[in-house]
Amino acid sequence: MHSIAQYQDIVTNHFTALNTPNNPKGLYDPIKYILSLGGKRLRPVLTLMATEIFDVDYKKGLSAATAIEVFHNFSLIHDDIMDDAPLRRGKETVHEKWNLNTGILSGDAMLILAYQYFEEYEPAIFQKLAKLFSKTALEVCEGQQYDVDFETRDDVTVPEYLKMIEYKTAVLVGAAMKMGAIVAETSEENANLIYDFGINLGIAFQLQDDYLDAFGDPKTFGKQIGGDIIENKKTYLYLKAIEFSTHENKEMLMHLFSIQPSDNTDKISSVKSIFNESGASKATQDAILKYTHMAFETLSKIEISEEKKAVLKAFGEKLMSRNV
Amino acid sequence: MHSIAQYQDIVTNHFTALNTPNNPKGLYDPIKYILSLGGKRLRPVLTLMATEIFDVDYKKGLSAATAIEVFHNFSLIHDDIMDDAPLRRGKETVHEKWNLNTGILSGDAMLILAYQYFEEYEPAIFQKLAKLFSKTALEVCEGQQYDVDFETRDDVTVPEYLKMIEYKTAVLVGAAMKMGAIVAETSEENANLIYDFGINLGIAFQLQDDYLDAFGDPKTFGKQIGGDIIENKKTYLYLKAIEFSTHENKEMLMHLFSIQPSDNTDKISSVKSIFNESGASKATQDAILKYTHMAFETLSKIEISEEKKAVLKAFGEKLMSRNV
Repeated sequence: MHSIAQYQDIVTNHFTALNTPNNPKGLYDPIKYILSLGGKRLRPVLTLMATEIFDVDYKKGLSAATAIEVFHNFSLIHDDIMDDAPLRRGKETVHEKWNLNTGILSGDAMLILAYQYFEEYEPAIFQKLAKLFSKTALEVCEGQQYDVDFETRDDVTVPEYLKMIEYKTAVLVGAAMKMGAIVAETSEENANLIYDFGINLGIAFQLQDDYLDAFGDPKTFGKQIGGDIIENKKTYLYLKAIEFSTHENKEMLMHLFSIQPSDNTDKISSVKSIFNESGASKATQDAILKYTHMAFETLSKIEISEEKKAVLKAFGEKLMSRNV
Repeated sequence: MHSIAQYQDIVTNHFTALNTPNNPKGLYDPIKYILSLGGKRLRPVLTLMATEIFDVDYKKGLSAATAIEVFHNFSLIHDDIMDDAPLRRGKETVHEKWNLNTGILSGDAMLILAYQYFEEYEPAIFQKLAKLFSKTALEVCEGQQYDVDFETRDDVTVPEYLKMIEYKTAVLVGAAMKMGAIVAETSEENANLIYDFGINLGIAFQLQDDYLDAFGDPKTFGKQIGGDIIENKKTYLYLKAIEFSTHENKEMLMHLFSIQPSDNTDKISSVKSIFNESGASKATQDAILKYTHMAFETLSKIEISEEKKAVLKAFGEKLMSRNV
């Protein structure tokens, strides 16, 4: 096994040397561009880690890891169009740097390229990877659609919200790990367990993202604190605050989530007070712990050495303390 | 073997009964909508035909045929966004009926769904189909990009144009037929020959589309005559006219292809005169015949009965007389 930093280096070097086609440039330059923006490369790292957890050289997982990262970047290009986002990782988004049509078409090509990375595997493994990939990719689309739908709905429930973040975020984490299990040809039971580990860790990660968006340290969080509040996003914090609040506070919160003031300072502090007073903050922290704990429970059932379980647990703990 | 009309009925019934997911509706309703608009269903018909040409029941080809048609409709949704087209098959385009984001996301989901239709095949066939599909789908994206690039280029050559229409249109026709050969498990040589048959017929079909756009019968062509001229599209007719024209006519043609008058009557008739006088019309008709002939030449090499060759030839002739 390697350290997380080592896997990150392996992935970074792999993407630097990656051979994507050159022509037509209008199609492939944006793909090279988004792939060069870097990021934490968490998903491909998880694939390599899972491959070695099941006693196979990480090199066998590299193509599957590449597919996962290329897919993730495809989804960023198309999501950035849908969100009208000007920046991604501090640089211009593809549709800003080029144009809308380039964003659509280069994204489409990346989705297809992702499938092509599975072609190096023999047919039985290829089919397992491609099936898992298609199922996951479709769930990511469904998660994105639910997210869009929730913007205009007033009756979103907590289970619906949890399903949305599972589809939009967690399934790709689970799939990244399961792909390592598939290329390592471990038992189906192990593969499903590591998938569940990834799903639960992914949900915990997203809930923590919701929490930190309101209560994180501006120095380390990396995004603007209160961004979700400014955008009136119905996160776990909001849904729990609505559930727990007094009638008066509930009305106040719903009002605050219907306005878009030019200065958000008061709005953010009022909303955060309600999040705290209602018990929503506490409930969110509890949920983060619950899903992290469920991930670790799943981990204990996988048939691997205690040493390797410790590696995955350390990764989970590091991720949940946001030092990855 | 069935008749073309029978295959069309089979495909139509198959799509009427097709089980696409229902929720979230915002994602899947647009998919049901575009698939319900019909069209000639030529590509899936070709897959079924090719399956039976190689002595296997068309039913085995149905899933591959579905994948091809779903992919084709994915490309229509995204192309219509890029072309800002309000209508498709006489009905509102998806991004018009819903919105841009729906067009992008539902299109993405269709591309993934297309891959899922291959999952019913056993691993070796699945991999062959998915590999051919990815290669083809990427070429279609490249063809679309070349088409976009050509709009702003003044130095497009005839070979470049032919490559563009091969990628944008013909490869999917070739792939549709080769998929029938793959599911029928015929020899690789036969599979490659029927692919070449489809490619050449596809190029002939597109060149004929260019020709009919200027010189077709308004009653039967289905699109507005002169549409390419109005849009200053550098088709085969245009490129050949530039190649063959006197200096004076060449200047005139380039001028006409730089303007966008409110009334196009004079522009269309002037351009058509140059197409005829320069010999470009004749050269285009010759090219259509050449590619049709090449398709039929390829056909003669396929190891199937003369009876089945006659079926494919009849299909080709019917297609090129536009009665399909």
